[in-house]
Amino acid sequence: MAAQHNRHRTQAERREQTRTALLDATVDCLVEVGYARTSVQEICARAGVSKGAVQHHFSAKAELMAAAVEHLTEKLKAQRLAAMAELPAGTARVPAAIDLLWEAYSGTLSTAVTELWVAARTDPELRAAIRPVDRALGRSVLENIAAVADNVPRDRVETLFWLTVNLTRGLALDAELGGDPTRRKQLLEEWKRIAVELYAGD
Amino acid sequence: MAAQHNRHRTQAERREQTRTALLDATVDCLVEVGYARTSVQEICARAGVSKGAVQHHFSAKAELMAAAVEHLTEKLKAQRLAAMAELPAGTARVPAAIDLLWEAYSGTLSTAVTELWVAARTDPELRAAIRPVDRALGRSVLENIAAVADNVPRDRVETLFWLTVNLTRGLALDAELGGDPTRRKQLLEEWKRIAVELYAGD
Repeated sequence: MAAQHNRHRTQAERREQTRTALLDATVDCLVEVGYARTSVQEICARAGVSKGAVQHHFSAKAELMAAAVEHLTEKLKAQRLAAMAELPAGTARVPAAIDLLWEAYSGTLSTAVTELWVAARTDPELRAAIRPVDRALGRSVLENIAAVADNVPRDRVETLFWLTVNLTRGLALDAELGGDPTRRKQLLEEWKRIAVELYAGD
Repeated sequence: MAAQHNRHRTQAERREQTRTALLDATVDCLVEVGYARTSVQEICARAGVSKGAVQHHFSAKAELMAAAVEHLTEKLKAQRLAAMAELPAGTARVPAAIDLLWEAYSGTLSTAVTELWVAARTDPELRAAIRPVDRALGRSVLENIAAVADNVPRDRVETLFWLTVNLTRGLALDAELGGDPTRRKQLLEEWKRIAVELYAGD
């Protein structure tokens, strides 16, 4: 009975390992070669998984892409929550939270998601798969931010959040094409200054 | 002599017509099917031009892409300059200028450029071709804006301009994936309010 239970768990673990390897390989592939060259074959080669095995986990490429974003989001969430627990108090909290959002919406996650977003514009199946994941990501980060935004009215938190997210997405695109990093840094600093003023109230 | 001159001009005109047809078809193709499926063959079919004829105009696909962005930019510039000549005076000028930037950095140009930007991240040849065009576009719009920003210090104009451009790019991406249009409109209105305050000085 115990042995059978152990064997069952080992199978589930192995299944989980294969799934994780596929999702990590998908993200790596999106970042390194872009969506257009991210084939299931390439992902399998990177993950060391047979093409047949993928079908036990994901019925379509779009599903694999959405799961990869979800997987990366979960990995980053733990990191983000730890950083949020250490946000400074008072007005220093706003610029520190903006830095956290910049980190969340730039880097690997941003690169992978931007590849998928742009591909999804002309691919309805991919769009249907990643829209819910993207919305859930936005809502989840917003709730984390709202939870630490003591005394700031909810509508102000949401405005600041979405302005920051969209500005950050624009800046992340700029970074990807090799725009001037000094200008990006200045703009982010200027935005923090504006945000502190907004946070202080009218 | 006159006849020869006319014939020469007609050839130049025909050459220009072919070039324009190719560039318009390239933009249409990028917008409709995305960069990955934008082949020279597809562009030729849309433009009604033989594949051999393309090589008289563009030696590489990347060059054709960069020229298409430049072509669309020029078309929009005339429109933008006309609109700028009619900007209202005083503080109403700032929100009106932001609306102009939103129009310049959303819509067809934004969609085509975003396709190319994202593809360029993993394609050095394409990146080398479109970076100068993109920089020239940014500088050209900035100079147009600076020319109508009477009495505002240059560094403040630049900060406002680049914050608006990056925010707009983020919002344009959001629009492409079918984000909430009401939220986008609210954010743009909020940004105009902030920009008017910044413009009014500290």
